[in-house]
Amino acid sequence: MKLTILGCYSATPRVNTNPTAQVLDIKSHLFLIDCGEGTQVQLRKNKIKFSRIKHIFISHLHGDHYFGLAGLISTFKLLTREADLHIYGPKGLKEVITLQMKLSDSWTNYKLIFHELTLKESHLIFEDDKVEVHTIPLDHRIYTNGFLFKEKDGERKLNIGAVEEAKIDVAYYRKLKQGFDVENNEGKLINNELVTKSGPKPKSYAFCSDTGYNESIIPIIKEVNLLYHESTFLEKHLNLAKSTKHSTVKQAASIAKQANVGKLILGHYSTRYDDLKSFKTEAKEIFESVELAKDGKTFEI
Amino acid sequence: MKLTILGCYSATPRVNTNPTAQVLDIKSHLFLIDCGEGTQVQLRKNKIKFSRIKHIFISHLHGDHYFGLAGLISTFKLLTREADLHIYGPKGLKEVITLQMKLSDSWTNYKLIFHELTLKESHLIFEDDKVEVHTIPLDHRIYTNGFLFKEKDGERKLNIGAVEEAKIDVAYYRKLKQGFDVENNEGKLINNELVTKSGPKPKSYAFCSDTGYNESIIPIIKEVNLLYHESTFLEKHLNLAKSTKHSTVKQAASIAKQANVGKLILGHYSTRYDDLKSFKTEAKEIFESVELAKDGKTFEI
Repeated sequence: MKLTILGCYSATPRVNTNPTAQVLDIKSHLFLIDCGEGTQVQLRKNKIKFSRIKHIFISHLHGDHYFGLAGLISTFKLLTREADLHIYGPKGLKEVITLQMKLSDSWTNYKLIFHELTLKESHLIFEDDKVEVHTIPLDHRIYTNGFLFKEKDGERKLNIGAVEEAKIDVAYYRKLKQGFDVENNEGKLINNELVTKSGPKPKSYAFCSDTGYNESIIPIIKEVNLLYHESTFLEKHLNLAKSTKHSTVKQAASIAKQANVGKLILGHYSTRYDDLKSFKTEAKEIFESVELAKDGKTFEI
Repeated sequence: MKLTILGCYSATPRVNTNPTAQVLDIKSHLFLIDCGEGTQVQLRKNKIKFSRIKHIFISHLHGDHYFGLAGLISTFKLLTREADLHIYGPKGLKEVITLQMKLSDSWTNYKLIFHELTLKESHLIFEDDKVEVHTIPLDHRIYTNGFLFKEKDGERKLNIGAVEEAKIDVAYYRKLKQGFDVENNEGKLINNELVTKSGPKPKSYAFCSDTGYNESIIPIIKEVNLLYHESTFLEKHLNLAKSTKHSTVKQAASIAKQANVGKLILGHYSTRYDDLKSFKTEAKEIFESVELAKDGKTFEI
């Protein structure tokens, strides 16, 4: 898993920073998370191949999280995309994108499939043979979801010594790796766990933006390898965080600590702060393993 | 009059170029013309004060001409704008912007006034004591207008010798400058033209994008000081210009020549061309006074 930050600032525009957008690369499958204005230019800058994006997840319908989507959809058309594009986001997203296409009389020549979200509980919204994506219900001024990306359990590893001793034919190795019990050369059923070990631990990433302090997400994001949690404000602006339903750095760090995550990435900084040093300092008072998101920065999981 | 190009490229995104947007400064009154994605960042880059924009003109509803508008409207709110904002553009614009505001549950705290355009003839859409703005009906794939900005006639200049000889009291000078006939000290009505001269010639700017070759605009833009005319393609792609209802450089130059304009600015370049030299060369074969638009470039009129 590799996460590339395309934009990690809140709404007011600046020359060198961008509103929220991220690309998560899981085994060469690209997931775009949020799509603020200018995301298509950020994709170009970061040399990310547009055509490899097949799934887009939109947290909520504040402009700094999705005003780049209509442009990206149009660009996919200009680039003569043929592959289906799946978009997951709050109800209303389909209506606004469809209206924009109608007004421009430019319909896509690829299939655009909207998966509109309305549920307020965490649920599975995407699944293939390698990955699951679940919503993380957040507490913001409008309906908002974070997203939990979980690799599925990989193949089990053969304990070759034990496999040979159990007299299992090589033709059954594939089934063993998949976790099945198999018969040996003497017709005896061999318990899979006696001859295999579990494979590498599946990795996980949780994206949580925008949200006020919200302990109810902790069970959902428990022990993820990487957590991106918005930290719009420093502690001195706790009152603003409360009134706008955003989080302070310390609140983000506290969630990370309680969920016992591997690493916390901070972001969605208010543009009132010229210097981000205090973000790291305040977070480290509560949770040690913390990094600052920055447009263009990449995190390997 | 001063024109600043914020973006002058067609739709496909690139790292260092921007879709259409321009700011026209007429006596410190700023008019924003089109508002492609990223316009608010371009405004910041070019150090243009957001609050001085009170009128926005949108040519048509292809995304590369207006996908930055919703973001800019949101930003005005974040910057606690109070002044009215007038938006002139095709019918449909109000619906899509209103839907975006509804979905984000963020209504503006200033008055947002839409002037939706539907007429297919040139007509006056804005007027104050200094400027008039008229539509220029263009020939594109969807309903599209260019915009003609015309300074109004300025004040007349007093011919002081003649004024004194005609025995006109100083209290009437203001009325003379405004073009009125006035009575002299002896109660005789003095014809204004005998004692004044016309003031400096009012300036004019015509914005024409996007459009196929369209001679019907010539009478409307006749003898403007400055014409921005789209030139999406070079002559070798004349077939593409025809099929997409865009213009070639030579077509733009031909319109400029027939309208006898002061200067032609080319723009809305297709991103297929890495080098713009041929744009100038091809134009100069037909019309000498030509310049290339470039993001960030300023033209004084």
